[in-house]
Amino acid sequence: MAKKVALIMGSDSDFPVLKACVTKLKSFGVEVEVHVMSAHRTPELACAFASRARDNGFGVIIAAAGKAAHLAGVLAAHTTLPVIGIPIKSSTLDGLDALLATVQMPSGIPVATVAIDGAENAAILALQILGVTDESIAEKLLDMKQDMVQKVVAKDDKLQSQLYDL
Amino acid sequence: MAKKVALIMGSDSDFPVLKACVTKLKSFGVEVEVHVMSAHRTPELACAFASRARDNGFGVIIAAAGKAAHLAGVLAAHTTLPVIGIPIKSSTLDGLDALLATVQMPSGIPVATVAIDGAENAAILALQILGVTDESIAEKLLDMKQDMVQKVVAKDDKLQSQLYDL
Amino acid sequence: MAKKVALIMGSDSDFPVLKACVTKLKSFGVEVEVHVMSAHRTPELACAFASRARDNGFGVIIAAAGKAAHLAGVLAAHTTLPVIGIPIKSSTLDGLDALLATVQMPSGIPVATVAIDGAENAAILALQILGVTDESIAEKLLDMKQDMVQKVVAKDDKLQSQLYDL
Amino acid sequence: MAKKVALIMGSDSDFPVLKACVTKLKSFGVEVEVHVMSAHRTPELACAFASRARDNGFGVIIAAAGKAAHLAGVLAAHTTLPVIGIPIKSSTLDGLDALLATVQMPSGIPVATVAIDGAENAAILALQILGVTDESIAEKLLDMKQDMVQKVVAKDDKLQSQLYDL
Amino acid sequence: MAKKVALIMGSDSDFPVLKACVTKLKSFGVEVEVHVMSAHRTPELACAFASRARDNGFGVIIAAAGKAAHLAGVLAAHTTLPVIGIPIKSSTLDGLDALLATVQMPSGIPVATVAIDGAENAAILALQILGVTDESIAEKLLDMKQDMVQKVVAKDDKLQSQLYDL
Amino acid sequence: MAKKVALIMGSDSDFPVLKACVTKLKSFGVEVEVHVMSAHRTPELACAFASRARDNGFGVIIAAAGKAAHLAGVLAAHTTLPVIGIPIKSSTLDGLDALLATVQMPSGIPVATVAIDGAENAAILALQILGVTDESIAEKLLDMKQDMVQKVVAKDDKLQSQLYDL
Amino acid sequence: MAKKVALIMGSDSDFPVLKACVTKLKSFGVEVEVHVMSAHRTPELACAFASRARDNGFGVIIAAAGKAAHLAGVLAAHTTLPVIGIPIKSSTLDGLDALLATVQMPSGIPVATVAIDGAENAAILALQILGVTDESIAEKLLDMKQDMVQKVVAKDDKLQSQLYDL
Amino acid sequence: MAKKVALIMGSDSDFPVLKACVTKLKSFGVEVEVHVMSAHRTPELACAFASRARDNGFGVIIAAAGKAAHLAGVLAAHTTLPVIGIPIKSSTLDGLDALLATVQMPSGIPVATVAIDGAENAAILALQILGVTDESIAEKLLDMKQDMVQKVVAKDDKLQSQLYDL
Repeated sequence: MAKKVALIMGSDSDFPVLKACVTKLKSFGVEVEVHVMSAHRTPELACAFASRARDNGFGVIIAAAGKAAHLAGVLAAHTTLPVIGIPIKSSTLDGLDALLATVQMPSGIPVATVAIDGAENAAILALQILGVTDESIAEKLLDMKQDMVQKVVAKDDKLQSQLYDL
Repeated sequence: MAKKVALIMGSDSDFPVLKACVTKLKSFGVEVEVHVMSAHRTPELACAFASRARDNGFGVIIAAAGKAAHLAGVLAAHTTLPVIGIPIKSSTLDGLDALLATVQMPSGIPVATVAIDGAENAAILALQILGVTDESIAEKLLDMKQDMVQKVVAKDDKLQSQLYDL
Repeated sequence: MAKKVALIMGSDSDFPVLKACVTKLKSFGVEVEVHVMSAHRTPELACAFASRARDNGFGVIIAAAGKAAHLAGVLAAHTTLPVIGIPIKSSTLDGLDALLATVQMPSGIPVATVAIDGAENAAILALQILGVTDESIAEKLLDMKQDMVQKVVAKDDKLQSQLYDL
Repeated sequence: MAKKVALIMGSDSDFPVLKACVTKLKSFGVEVEVHVMSAHRTPELACAFASRARDNGFGVIIAAAGKAAHLAGVLAAHTTLPVIGIPIKSSTLDGLDALLATVQMPSGIPVATVAIDGAENAAILALQILGVTDESIAEKLLDMKQDMVQKVVAKDDKLQSQLYDL
Repeated sequence: MAKKVALIMGSDSDFPVLKACVTKLKSFGVEVEVHVMSAHRTPELACAFASRARDNGFGVIIAAAGKAAHLAGVLAAHTTLPVIGIPIKSSTLDGLDALLATVQMPSGIPVATVAIDGAENAAILALQILGVTDESIAEKLLDMKQDMVQKVVAKDDKLQSQLYDL
Repeated sequence: MAKKVALIMGSDSDFPVLKACVTKLKSFGVEVEVHVMSAHRTPELACAFASRARDNGFGVIIAAAGKAAHLAGVLAAHTTLPVIGIPIKSSTLDGLDALLATVQMPSGIPVATVAIDGAENAAILALQILGVTDESIAEKLLDMKQDMVQKVVAKDDKLQSQLYDL
Repeated sequence: MAKKVALIMGSDSDFPVLKACVTKLKSFGVEVEVHVMSAHRTPELACAFASRARDNGFGVIIAAAGKAAHLAGVLAAHTTLPVIGIPIKSSTLDGLDALLATVQMPSGIPVATVAIDGAENAAILALQILGVTDESIAEKLLDMKQDMVQKVVAKDDKLQSQLYDL
Repeated sequence: MAKKVALIMGSDSDFPVLKACVTKLKSFGVEVEVHVMSAHRTPELACAFASRARDNGFGVIIAAAGKAAHLAGVLAAHTTLPVIGIPIKSSTLDGLDALLATVQMPSGIPVATVAIDGAENAAILALQILGVTDESIAEKLLDMKQDMVQKVVAKDDKLQSQLYDL
C-alpha cells in the first residue's frame, strides 16, 4: 500500500505558505496528513508522532518552522524516516535563522532541507523519495518535468510579443 | 534488487571530506558509485549521468560542490530521483556561498540539502530514503540510532572522571 | 556584421526588472534576442542555446536569475563567449543568495557578475565588450559617459534651489 | 538548601571551551552537574533530565551546542527553570548558525543566550540568577565585579611601562 | 516580598513591540516598572537606575534597544542582577546589529539575550528567573506551559477543517 | 594588432594570488601589463592610466583589491573599456567586503566581477572578451574547455583506484 | 573665520534622508554647501572639489552614497581634511554593502563612518570636529546633550501615563 | 597649545594591533595617552575619563574594542569631543559584531568608525581632525600623502622585475 506523507508545521500562521505543499501532494494522489505541532510548545506530541510515523504508514515527514527552527531536527531525532525541513521566513533576519537552524544538523541526524518558504519543492522532494520505488509516482514526476518545459516554452513565446512594445 | 547510491563530487580535492559518506554507505551494504564530474567543466557527462541514473539502478544521487555550487541542482534538473546536496566549505566565505547555491532552488527542482561538509549525514539521508521501503536498511538505521545513544552515554560516563581534575 | 546580444531570464516574472537592459541595448542600435529559459526546468534548451550562440552571431550572453541562480554558470559552461550574470532579488535573503550563486564560480568558467538587479549595467557591460573592437559603440559609450556628467550637473543645479527651503 | 546548576553539552568535544564555566561555578561554591546529552542523539535522556531538573534540586540549566544548536531550546521545552544557551563555534560559519539557532526562540519558550563560546559568562549569568535571592552569591558577585576593576587598573598600569618602548 | 521587574527601553518608539512584555509580567501578578532611558543620551540616569536596582527591590532588569544596542550591557555593568536583553529590529540590517551588540558581551558581564523583538519571551525568562525560588510563579509557569499545549492542539483541530477546502 | 590586457592591483601584497592571472593570459599569447596602483593612495596615476588605456592599446582592464575595494570602480569611471574586478580576501570578513564593494556598482558604471580571489577566472573572462572578435583566442578557449574535460575525466579515473582502500 | 562643511551625495534621490544633516548643521549656525557629485559618473568634479576643499574654507566633508559606496573614499583620497561617510540603504542588501564599502578603507586613507542612513549623526560628528577648537560650537554641543536628557526624561514621563492602559 | 589624543582599549590583549596607532600619532609629534579601560568592567573610570577629556587637553578620543564593542559609544555619551571607534576582530564572527556595535549608533551620539583592526587609520583620522585648524599637522598629512605615492610607485617598479620570472 502507498506510503502517506506527513506535513507538520510549528505554527498555524505558516499555513498560507504551506498550502502549495498540500495541493501538490494531493495532485499526485498521495495521502497527506497535516498537523500543527511545536518542538517547543508540544514536544511530547511531536516526538510521539515521529516515533510512530513509520508504523502508522508514513514514508516521509515534512516539517516547517521559522526562526530557531528546531521542529525538523527534533522530529528526525525520533524516526528513521527521511525528514524534509522547510525553513519559514519570519519578520526578522529574512529566513536566514530558520535556514541555518534547519540545515546545519550534527552528524547522525540529517534533515533534507529545501529553500526558505520552499513548500512546493518539499512536496516534490517527498514525491521523489516515494518515487524511488513507486513507478507510478516516478512516471508522474517525469510528466511534471515535461510539463514544466512546455510552460517555460509558452512563457518564452508570450514574452516575444511583449518585446515589440520596448 | 537493492538500489545503488551515486556520489558525484565537483572536484577531487573534496574527496577527503567525502570519504565519510562512502564508508557509511558501504557499512550498510549499499553499493555506491563515486565520480568526479563538474556542472561547469564536464556538463555533458554530468547531465548524461543524471539522465540515466534511474535506469542504471540508482535510487539516490548525492552531489558535493563548493563556492557557486551548481552541481546538485544541475543533476536534479536531469532526473526524477531525489538529489542530496552537500555544500563544501572552500577558502572564502566559510561555506555560506555553497550552502545558498545548493539549497535555494527554484520551484520545481528541489535539492535535499544537508549541512556544510555534512558528508556522513548525506549518506544517512540516502539510507533513510532507501529505507522507506527497504526493511533491512530501516532496521540497521534503528540499530545505528541506538548505537548513538550508547556512544553518548559512554562519553558522558567518561566525562564524569575528567571532572575530578577541575 | 555587428554581433547580437542575448538576454536569457530564468523566469518571466523577472522581466519588469530586465526591461532596462533591453531598452539600453536597443538605444545603441545593438540587436538583442530575449528568452525565458531555465537552467533547471529547461536545461536542454538553455545548453543548446549557449552551445550555438557564437555560431548564431551572438557576441555576449546576459543571464538573469534569482535564488540559487545557476543560469549564468550553466550557460557559461557551454560557450566560450563572455557571459554576464545579473543576480535577481527574490522574496527572501535580499538577493545575497543569487549574488553568491552567480559570482562565486569555480576556476575555468567565469561569470561577469553585475550588481543585484543591475539590469542596465549588464547592458552597458555588454556594450563595452562589443565596443572593444567596435569603434562606433565605443564612441556612443563615451557620449553616454559625458551625458551622465551633464545629468549629474543638472541635478546638482536643481538641488541648490531645493536648499532654500531648509 | 542551595540550588544546583546543570551544564549539558551536546558533544564532549566542546568540553575544553566549557571548562571555564565549571571552574567559575565551583569557585562560588555552587554545586554543578555536567553531562553530555544530545537533543538529537539522546533526546529521551535530555528531555527526561530537563523534566526532572527542578525536582532534582537544580535552579538553572546551561546548555552548550554548535551548528543547528537545538539543545538549549529542547531542554527549555521540558522545564520551567531558566535555561542558558551557549552557542559553540564549529568548523564552518564562525558560530553564527549556533547563535541564531539558540537565540531566535519562538514565543513561549525563551533561551537566555550568551556570546558564542561564552562559557564563563554563562556561569556568571547562572550565578546572577541564583543571586537574586541568595545574598551570599550576590555578595561574591559584587566582590568579583570589584576584583575586575582592580585587574583592569593593574593592566593599565602595566601598559604604561610598555609604552616607553614605542 | 516579591521582587519587581524593570523594563528599560532605549527609545519610546519601541513601546508597541514591548507592550507584550509588560502585559505578560502583569498577568503573573509581578510588579513591573517601565522607563525610557538611553545608554547614550541619559547614561547617568541609566547607570544610577542599575546601581540601585537591587536595593530598590528589583530582581531582574529587562533592557530593549535597537541598532548598536548598548543599553543591556551598560546596565549589566552596574548591577549584579541578571539583565535580559531584547534586540529591537530597526529600519536597517533586520535586527542583526542589535542582536550582535546585545549578545556578544565580553567575559565578566553577561547579558541574557532573547530573540529579536522577543518581548514576550523576555517576560517569561524574567518569570523563570523569579520562579527559581518563588513557587507560586513556578506553578503559574507550569500552567502556562500546559495552556500552550491546549492552544496548539486547538489550532491543530481547527486546521483539520481548513484542509477540506484544498 | 591584438589588444593588450592590463592587470592593476591595489597592493603588491596581492601579487601571489594574482600570478595565476598573469600566467594564464601569457599562455594565450596575450600581452599583459601589470601595475601596482591604488584608488586611494595614487588616485591620479590610476585615473590617468584608465583614461588612456584604450588609446594605449588595451582591450580589457583587470583590477584586484581587498576590503573597501574601490579600484575597479574608480578605473571604470575613467574608461569605456570593460573592467573586470577581482575581490581579494583580506584578514577580516572573509572577502565579503571586497565582493560587495566591487560588484554593487551604481547604474552607468558596471564592473564585471569574478569570484573572491578569482584570479584565473579574471584572465579567462578577459580572454573571452578579446575572443568575441579574435578567432584565434576563441579557438584556444575551446581547446582549454576540452582540456578541462580531459583533466576531470583523468581525475575521475584516478579516484576509482583510491576507492579500493575504503 | 568659521570653517564650512560640505555635504556631497552620490545621487539626488538620497536627499530626503540627508535633509536632517543639513538642518542640524544650519541650526548650529555652520555654513554648509551641498552638492550632487558621483565618484563614478562625475569623478573629475568630485576629485577637484575635494582637492580644493581646504583652500576653499571647508573644515569637514560629509559624503553619502549607497551600494558600492566609493564616494567618501574617493574624496578622502584627494584631501587631508577629515571625511565623514554616510552609508545609504538602497533597495537590496539592507545597506550592508554601502557600510562595508565605506568603512573598510585601506591603511592611509580613513573614512569616519557613521550608521547606515545616519544623516543627523554625520552632522553632529562634523560639529564635534569643528568644536575641537571652536568653543562656541562646543558649548552648543553641550547644550544639545543636555537637551537630549530633557527629551528622554519627558518621554519617560509621558510613557508612565500610557502604562495605565495596559 | 596642541591638543592631545587619547587611545582607550577595552582589553590589553588588543595592544599588539593598536601599536600602529600610537607610533603614527607620535611620528607626527602629537602627544598620546594610552589606557586600558572597559565599558563594562570599569565603567566609572571610562565615563570619568571621557567627561574630563576636553578639560584635560584632549582633542580626540580613540576607542578600540571587540565583540559587543560598546566602549566608543559609552565614551561618546560622556563627551562632546569626536570619538573614533576601532572595531577589533576577535575569535568569532570575523569582527562583524564589533563593527556593527561600534558604527550603528543611535541619533545624537555618533562614533567615527574606521575599518576592523584599522589602528593606523584611526591615528590618521585623529590627525586630520586636529589638522582642520593646526596647519603644521595639515602639512605633515600632505607630506604623508605624497610619501604614499612614492611608496606605491616604488612597489610598482619593483613588481616589474618580478614579472620576468612568470
